[in-house]
Amino acid sequence: MPSLAPHIASVPASGIRRIFEMATTLDDVAMLVVGEPDVPVARHIGDAARRAWSEDRTNYTPNGGIAPLREALVAKLARENDVHVDLEQVWVTIGASQGLHQAMGLLLAAGDEVLVPDPGYTTFTMNARMLDAVPVPYTLSSEAGFVPDVAELDGLVGERTRAIIVNSPSNPLGVVYSEDVLQGLLDFAARHDLWVISDEVYEYFTYGPRHISMAALDRDDRVFSVFSLSKTYAMTGVRVGYLVTPKGLADTMRTVQEAAISCVAEPDQFAALAAIVGDHQSVADARDHYRSNGELAMRLLDAKGIRYLEPNGAFYLWVDVSHASRGDVATWCERLLLTSRVAVAPGSAFGRSGEGWIRVTLAATPETLERGIAALPSPV
Amino acid sequence: MPSLAPHIASVPASGIRRIFEMATTLDDVAMLVVGEPDVPVARHIGDAARRAWSEDRTNYTPNGGIAPLREALVAKLARENDVHVDLEQVWVTIGASQGLHQAMGLLLAAGDEVLVPDPGYTTFTMNARMLDAVPVPYTLSSEAGFVPDVAELDGLVGERTRAIIVNSPSNPLGVVYSEDVLQGLLDFAARHDLWVISDEVYEYFTYGPRHISMAALDRDDRVFSVFSLSKTYAMTGVRVGYLVTPKGLADTMRTVQEAAISCVAEPDQFAALAAIVGDHQSVADARDHYRSNGELAMRLLDAKGIRYLEPNGAFYLWVDVSHASRGDVATWCERLLLTSRVAVAPGSAFGRSGEGWIRVTLAATPETLERGIAALPSPV
Repeated sequence: MPSLAPHIASVPASGIRRIFEMATTLDDVAMLVVGEPDVPVARHIGDAARRAWSEDRTNYTPNGGIAPLREALVAKLARENDVHVDLEQVWVTIGASQGLHQAMGLLLAAGDEVLVPDPGYTTFTMNARMLDAVPVPYTLSSEAGFVPDVAELDGLVGERTRAIIVNSPSNPLGVVYSEDVLQGLLDFAARHDLWVISDEVYEYFTYGPRHISMAALDRDDRVFSVFSLSKTYAMTGVRVGYLVTPKGLADTMRTVQEAAISCVAEPDQFAALAAIVGDHQSVADARDHYRSNGELAMRLLDAKGIRYLEPNGAFYLWVDVSHASRGDVATWCERLLLTSRVAVAPGSAFGRSGEGWIRVTLAATPETLERGIAALPSPV
Repeated sequence: MPSLAPHIASVPASGIRRIFEMATTLDDVAMLVVGEPDVPVARHIGDAARRAWSEDRTNYTPNGGIAPLREALVAKLARENDVHVDLEQVWVTIGASQGLHQAMGLLLAAGDEVLVPDPGYTTFTMNARMLDAVPVPYTLSSEAGFVPDVAELDGLVGERTRAIIVNSPSNPLGVVYSEDVLQGLLDFAARHDLWVISDEVYEYFTYGPRHISMAALDRDDRVFSVFSLSKTYAMTGVRVGYLVTPKGLADTMRTVQEAAISCVAEPDQFAALAAIVGDHQSVADARDHYRSNGELAMRLLDAKGIRYLEPNGAFYLWVDVSHASRGDVATWCERLLLTSRVAVAPGSAFGRSGEGWIRVTLAATPETLERGIAALPSPV
C-alpha cells in the first residue's frame, strides 16, 4: 500500500464521535452527547419528500439547487436575517458540513492559516487539516465572557492568515454574540483583509438576545455564511444546508459543487422547500422544549453546586467539571459513560480551552437530562 | 473582498454543464448531452424512501452509512464484483462524485500529480485542481483501441505522481477494459507504487464483455473503488454512491467523512438499500433500452457515413465530427445547439484527445436520438 498524503495524519478525529460510538455499544445510556434534536420532523416536510418521490423527482438538479428552494432561501434571508442576496449567491449543500467544507476549500491553500474558536465545533479544525491548512485557535474564555478577544485575535494574525471562523449562536457554548461583538470581528477582519466564515446553524434557537447574521453587517463582501435546516427543523439526517457567498462567485461555486457533490438529493430539496415556506410552529415548540430543558438542568446543577455557563442560544449546556476531571476530561467522560451510563461530550473535544468542561445536550427528554445530571459529582 | 486561494482559478469549468445550461434556456431541444438515465426509478425504491420518511428516519447515521446498507453492499461486492471486503471498507457517499472527491483528497497533497484518462470524465481534472494537485492526462487514442498505453504511462510518471484514475466502462468512450488491460494497469501502478482510483459507475451497463473490478485483481491494497447507484437504478438525483477502500483506513475515513458531509441522507440510504437487495428487472430493461438505442444510432450513423466508436459499455456513443468541427468542437457544439436545437457534449470537454469528437448519450427516446443524429453533417 502506498502512503496517504502526509497531512491526512494530522486530521484529528472527533472526540464527540468517540464517546458516541462507545455509547452505542452499551445498553440504557442517557444520551446527552450528540447535537441532534429529539423532536420529530413536522408532517408537511415529510409529505413534500414523499410527494417528490411519488412524482419521480429523482434527477440531477442545478448544482446550486432547485430554483424554488433557492428563491425561498433568498426571501428567508432577507426577511429573517436582513441579508439581501441574489439567487446565485445561495448554494444548497449537504447540511452545513459540506457548505463549510466547500467554503474553506475555496479560501485556504496548503500552509494557510485560519482562525478557529476554542472551544469550537470540531470540524472547523478537521476541515482545515484536511486542506493541509493550519487551524489557529482563538480563545473563548470564561474570564472574557466567552466572546472573542479582538486584542488576542490581532496578535494571532500572521502572513498566512486568510480567514476567521465565527460561530454564533455557538456550539458548544450557547453564547449569542451581540451586534457590537460581531461588528468588532468584522472590523478586525477588514483590518487584516481576512475572509469571514460565519456558522449560523443555531440561528433559530436563542433565548433572549436576537440572532444577528454577520452578512447583514458585511459592507465589503468578505462573509461566507453557513446555514442548515438540520437543527431548525430536526432534520439532521436529511442533510440539507446552504452556503451564502459574497457576490461574483457563481461560476466558481458551480464548478466546485459539480465536482464535489453535483447537487443535493432532489427529494430532500423538496422537503427543505416545504420546511422553509411552511408553518414554523414546530420550530417554536422545539425552542420552548430546549429552553424548558435548560431551565430544569440549571436548577439541578445549582442544587448540586456545579458551575455552568447559562446559554442564551443553541441547545447545549457548558458545564464545569474541573473539580472532578483532574486535567483529563476526555478520560473522565469515558469513565462516566462506563460507570454511570451517561454520555456527554468532553470539552477538550472542542479545543484546549475546553479542558475541564463538558457539553451536555438539551435536546433530550427531561428524564434523560435528570439522570445525566444526577450522575455528575458535586465539588467537595 | 480578499482573494480566493490561488489554485481555485485553475479549476476548469465543466464543458458539458456549459452546453447543458445553454440548452435549458431554449425550447424543444433534443437533449443528448447529460449522462442521466431517462427511465423512471423502480417502484420498490421509492416505496422504501417514502416508508423511511413516514417512520421519521431522518437522523444522523454512522458516517459510513446504515449497517444494513453497508452489509448489503459487502454482499453485492462479493457476488457481483468478486471484491471481498469488510463493512468498514465500504463508505456510503454523495453519489460517486463525493467518493471520488474524498479518495483524491486522501491521496493527493498540493503539487502532487495524478494520471487521468484523456478523454475522461471532467471531474477527475476538476477535483485534482481543487486540491492544488496536477492532473496529468494519459491518452486513450483511436490508434491504440482507446485503451491506456502502458509505455506512455511509464513515461508520464514523475517524482510527484501519486495515483492513476482508471474508468471502465468508460465515460465518454463506452470502452470496457479486459482483464489483461486492467492487470497491466495494476502492474504499472505496483511498479511505481501508485494508488489506483477505479471509477466503475457504469458497471451494470456492458454489451458483450463482462465488467471486471480493479479491486478484484488487487493484491497489495492499492485500489480505491468508486461505485454509484445513480446510473444503475436511474437515481442520479438521489445522490447515493459508495467508496470501497483498502483495509485499515476506517478511522481516517470516519474522520474525513464526518468533516465533509457527516453522512448521506437517511431516507436515501433506505432507498439505496431497497435498490441493492431488490428486483433488478428495471436494470436489465434499462440495459436493453440503451443497447437498442445504440444499435439504432449506429445504423443511422453508418447510413450517413459518420465514424464512431462502437461502445461495449456505459450509455454513450463517441462520434467523430472532425470533418465538420474545424478544430474547435466546443464552438461547433454551441452552433449545433443554436441552429439545430440538438445538445451533445463536445469531446474537448473530456480532454485534449477529445477534440473533433462528440459524446452522444443513448439515455434518450429513439425519436430524440433520431432527431439528434439527423442534424449531424456527413463527411463530404
